[in-house]
Amino acid sequence: MSRTFIIVGSKAVTEPFSLNDLAGAAGRMDLLCRSLSAAFFLSHDMRRDVKAYLYLMGPPSPPRAISFRGSELKYMSPDERNIAGLIRKALGQEAIAHDWHGSTPGVDICSKGFDELVEEVTATSDPGRPTLFQLVEDGAPIDEVELGDDPVFVLGDHVGFPPPIEPWLKGWKKVSIGKRSYHTDHCITVVNHTLDRR
Amino acid sequence: MSRTFIIVGSKAVTEPFSLNDLAGAAGRMDLLCRSLSAAFFLSHDMRRDVKAYLYLMGPPSPPRAISFRGSELKYMSPDERNIAGLIRKALGQEAIAHDWHGSTPGVDICSKGFDELVEEVTATSDPGRPTLFQLVEDGAPIDEVELGDDPVFVLGDHVGFPPPIEPWLKGWKKVSIGKRSYHTDHCITVVNHTLDRR
Repeated sequence: MSRTFIIVGSKAVTEPFSLNDLAGAAGRMDLLCRSLSAAFFLSHDMRRDVKAYLYLMGPPSPPRAISFRGSELKYMSPDERNIAGLIRKALGQEAIAHDWHGSTPGVDICSKGFDELVEEVTATSDPGRPTLFQLVEDGAPIDEVELGDDPVFVLGDHVGFPPPIEPWLKGWKKVSIGKRSYHTDHCITVVNHTLDRR
Repeated sequence: MSRTFIIVGSKAVTEPFSLNDLAGAAGRMDLLCRSLSAAFFLSHDMRRDVKAYLYLMGPPSPPRAISFRGSELKYMSPDERNIAGLIRKALGQEAIAHDWHGSTPGVDICSKGFDELVEEVTATSDPGRPTLFQLVEDGAPIDEVELGDDPVFVLGDHVGFPPPIEPWLKGWKKVSIGKRSYHTDHCITVVNHTLDRR
């Protein structure tokens, strides 16, 4: 039983950034930080069964993928500034290459493309199950969908999925948490709540 | 039709604070900022039918109540730092008194006690309806509760409701979003989603 979230940051910068301007110069890094907070945190506890990936597409060196494994995460607090510090540290690693490279405990970074990232994520899921979901407004109501034991959800940021990403989402089932359009972090909270109730 | 959230910050400071240490020196102000973000923000839109109150009980000058009216809010962005700036500005007003005093558009501050605050909030709701709800883990499942048109929800922070507050919550119906204990901001997101689906 696991839950995986892939969050696409279409404008999020791919070099170390100021912690004092997450929403501006860092390309809506605030939203990605809150999304990780929503993915991992319970009150006084952490969801160890969650994995999350940020896929950063902003300047100057896209793409960068950063993985967060709840089973091994340390030093993460739920506030934006703390999480931004972990992201900044990962982006500041020397020689970020195609293969994963460790940053802080439970946090790794690489320069894989989205297709390779998806291939890797899905290779670790049970191949017999329909585990890949896009979270969009016009999808099937999530309460009526069989999510399986190891669902993988992909979410866009404030501008949705950029064109280079869309072809890679063709096989992903569209699910919806409602007609109103929510922030990415709020979507993740609702998905976690939906899974908690099952 | 309106939604009101009262969020008790048991340690949140009652004077201007550094925006660089919201989770520490400011007494978990980060959590209160995310709670307001969850209360008000839709993707590219704001919930104009929401009102939220922070009730701050930390040093040096408790209590301070800050009200946020979605119908009139301006200059609020969803990131912690922006919202913290609005709270800090309110706390920095000269001569904060018993009665409400305007800070930025849609934001007011006063030094009323919790009992007076509740009296004021409920006086503006339809008195014939059971509109007051405490969000706690062991309450009635929220999906099975008649919430009415103008529900008022009170939520604690990371330490729950402090003893001075509890006597004032006796008449409030306990509702729950599940057995797992969530952060305050995540609770608000789930409550908004629950109400959106009705």
